[in-house]
Amino acid sequence: MTARIVDVETIDVRFPTSRSLDGSDAMNEAPDYSAAYVVLHVEGEGSSASVSGGHGFTFTIGRGNDLATRAAQAVGERAVGLSVEEIAADLGGFSRHLLGDSQLRWLGPDKGAIHLGTAAVVNAGWDLAAKLADKPVWKLLSDFTPQQIVDLVDWRYLKDALTPDAALEMLEARVPGRAGREAHVREHGYPAYTTSAGWLGYDDEKLARLCREAVEQGWDSVKLKVGADLGDDVRRCRIARRIIGPERRLMIDANQTLGVAEAVEWAEALKEFDIWWFEEPTSPDDVLGHAAIARSIKPIHVATGEHAHNAVMFKQFLQADAIGICQIDACRLGGVNEAVASLLLAAAHGVPVCPHAGGVGLCELVQHLSIFDYVAVSGSMEDRVIEYVDHLHEHFLDPVRVRGSRYMVPRAPGYSAQIRRETLEAHRYPDGSVWSGPRQVTS
Amino acid sequence: MTARIVDVETIDVRFPTSRSLDGSDAMNEAPDYSAAYVVLHVEGEGSSASVSGGHGFTFTIGRGNDLATRAAQAVGERAVGLSVEEIAADLGGFSRHLLGDSQLRWLGPDKGAIHLGTAAVVNAGWDLAAKLADKPVWKLLSDFTPQQIVDLVDWRYLKDALTPDAALEMLEARVPGRAGREAHVREHGYPAYTTSAGWLGYDDEKLARLCREAVEQGWDSVKLKVGADLGDDVRRCRIARRIIGPERRLMIDANQTLGVAEAVEWAEALKEFDIWWFEEPTSPDDVLGHAAIARSIKPIHVATGEHAHNAVMFKQFLQADAIGICQIDACRLGGVNEAVASLLLAAAHGVPVCPHAGGVGLCELVQHLSIFDYVAVSGSMEDRVIEYVDHLHEHFLDPVRVRGSRYMVPRAPGYSAQIRRETLEAHRYPDGSVWSGPRQVTS
Repeated sequence: MTARIVDVETIDVRFPTSRSLDGSDAMNEAPDYSAAYVVLHVEGEGSSASVSGGHGFTFTIGRGNDLATRAAQAVGERAVGLSVEEIAADLGGFSRHLLGDSQLRWLGPDKGAIHLGTAAVVNAGWDLAAKLADKPVWKLLSDFTPQQIVDLVDWRYLKDALTPDAALEMLEARVPGRAGREAHVREHGYPAYTTSAGWLGYDDEKLARLCREAVEQGWDSVKLKVGADLGDDVRRCRIARRIIGPERRLMIDANQTLGVAEAVEWAEALKEFDIWWFEEPTSPDDVLGHAAIARSIKPIHVATGEHAHNAVMFKQFLQADAIGICQIDACRLGGVNEAVASLLLAAAHGVPVCPHAGGVGLCELVQHLSIFDYVAVSGSMEDRVIEYVDHLHEHFLDPVRVRGSRYMVPRAPGYSAQIRRETLEAHRYPDGSVWSGPRQVTS
Repeated sequence: MTARIVDVETIDVRFPTSRSLDGSDAMNEAPDYSAAYVVLHVEGEGSSASVSGGHGFTFTIGRGNDLATRAAQAVGERAVGLSVEEIAADLGGFSRHLLGDSQLRWLGPDKGAIHLGTAAVVNAGWDLAAKLADKPVWKLLSDFTPQQIVDLVDWRYLKDALTPDAALEMLEARVPGRAGREAHVREHGYPAYTTSAGWLGYDDEKLARLCREAVEQGWDSVKLKVGADLGDDVRRCRIARRIIGPERRLMIDANQTLGVAEAVEWAEALKEFDIWWFEEPTSPDDVLGHAAIARSIKPIHVATGEHAHNAVMFKQFLQADAIGICQIDACRLGGVNEAVASLLLAAAHGVPVCPHAGGVGLCELVQHLSIFDYVAVSGSMEDRVIEYVDHLHEHFLDPVRVRGSRYMVPRAPGYSAQIRRETLEAHRYPDGSVWSGPRQVTS
């Protein structure tokens, strides 16, 4: 008798982060960090997967989280009745099955609310498969054969940039070093950088204080939000560079607010502060625009990806030399499978992956992807850092552990995606106690 | 006293088209054509706008239409309280206001369910403005000054391909010929082509019969769905070409099913049938892939756009010489404003616009855009045809009128978007009589 998914539960979970302007930037002035949360309930034999179910989510910033939740419900119903063992044995097929409803596909395709909802369900399936294997997702992935990894990916639209055979060859070349790299990352962790210092809603004094604290806490890199006013940004970058000194890395992030020519102008004005990367300079859909910016602002790298909705977008950013830093998002992409596709494409093009994180639980997820990338795909940590924001980790059963400026390797089985039941209940929108209690926030 | 929007009503309307395989293609095997329908209810002075309200919709193919409807509701609530006169005086500002919710924007940005919902509301606002002016939308647009047209567009991400000044100059050069072209199109209509013959679900005999009927009805061009099996497609194109003869145009449409190399292979095998355009050969997000295909399959033109989600995508398709035919969609783009942006970009690049239509009411909408393009933007009908599918027009208050192979100019005030109230009630999902009656369709 095998275990089967018997029910999908979805919960609209929101955190009232707009009350303190945590997470503010030039495009997103007052977000309420939210998760469209999915539990795949399992019945059958008594593995840990059967007991706790598969947990996954996608991230949004407030209004509209109901749409992502409803999308996850529609996609999740396609998982009901499937065998957990069969999912675990063919995670590529599982992902393709979830993406394969031709009517739901029309809402994307492979983008927007339906893709966010799909990511939540795919991620929950990976949580389930990893629990069944009694491994964290990074380890499950890192123990796969090269062929198993290649089989996770839908190659239909990717073969002009990377063939399955070339991916296989690249992965096979990394097999001999896997054990050594795994031991290394288990001992030393994976490098991180912090965005907590530089939210746009903070004043100069708070910016300076947070930069000082970042240095004291041992961070090697700091990222500032820019893009609303160039004069302000020059002043804020000057403050940050003065405090962090010449050795640490400084990055800037315009959150899509600029046109191509303006982005070049911004980089020109800020380059005196020795900027490592310029993130989301313009529309996330504009491959050719990013390529034009990248050509103009060297040696500053263009970085983007938190709004790159699928692997076809990353394929093009890489083909066009439009990005020097690839910022995959564990929930904007359609879950682990599409993230793996993007890791393969980036490694084949020699571009470092520095995942987008922060939000709700994105740090918890992307650490698995970067560690897998190091062990089995790119084989390198050079110029690679995972974003870290010190918000909301306390709500997770298996929160990230960051020591100094490094992520420690997660050890619990699964995808570190499980939110505490009491949090789910208190933050459920609109009827949880956080939202229905005496302090109301206008939406 | 001015008229104001006092309420937004949204309705999930679905037609059970999958029962007959109308609309089947290689990607979309059994669609139920649907509309996420919006009514902006108005109170105030007694204009026709106040009486009937503003009507708009977006198109989907069944499951997920509830998401698009809910997205339209969320966006539509931003319109409640606005003055109809102020909307009509600044339709650019109206569109920017609807797109400007930073939390909802996260679900896209500018793509997917939230953008489809936005399109429905923007379209309803245009219906309202046109009714207030007592003109059809094409005429409202065609009477705008060049500066008013330029002001409809959000130029933030477009200026690297076309500046507002260059657009203004192009539009001013068309002003002297407007009156003559308007008289011409009123008399002769606008050219159309039919897709009704070539749905993939039809057998060879039905294909042959429908091609013969198309010729008898006076059509100059016929489009076939391809992409599932190359052998079948060679046989079907041979049948079609034999029946329509050497003079009429034949187009093919793969509905995104192919990779870049496969698309080139398909074109190679079918070019003996003298193909005018090859539509949606691959992923709609793949600008560089379309460009590679376009370079390889000349003189066949690459056509795409029904899934191009915003003007930034059309900008790139045009910059990269990736398309020879630009197929804007009145509901996939964020409504009239973004369609106007795309018309300007296409005209500036010398690429003909042949809008996507069919579905529910897309023919009703896009005729306004093409007629405006002819009168005031490109000034040409050469190599331009509007798709025509003879489904579901009977449900509209102001249905398209096609004579021979040409669309007749719409005359009623508004955007021809209004569906009959009895249809809305019978087809409302899931409780309308069509869906809750004795004959049920499994979803």
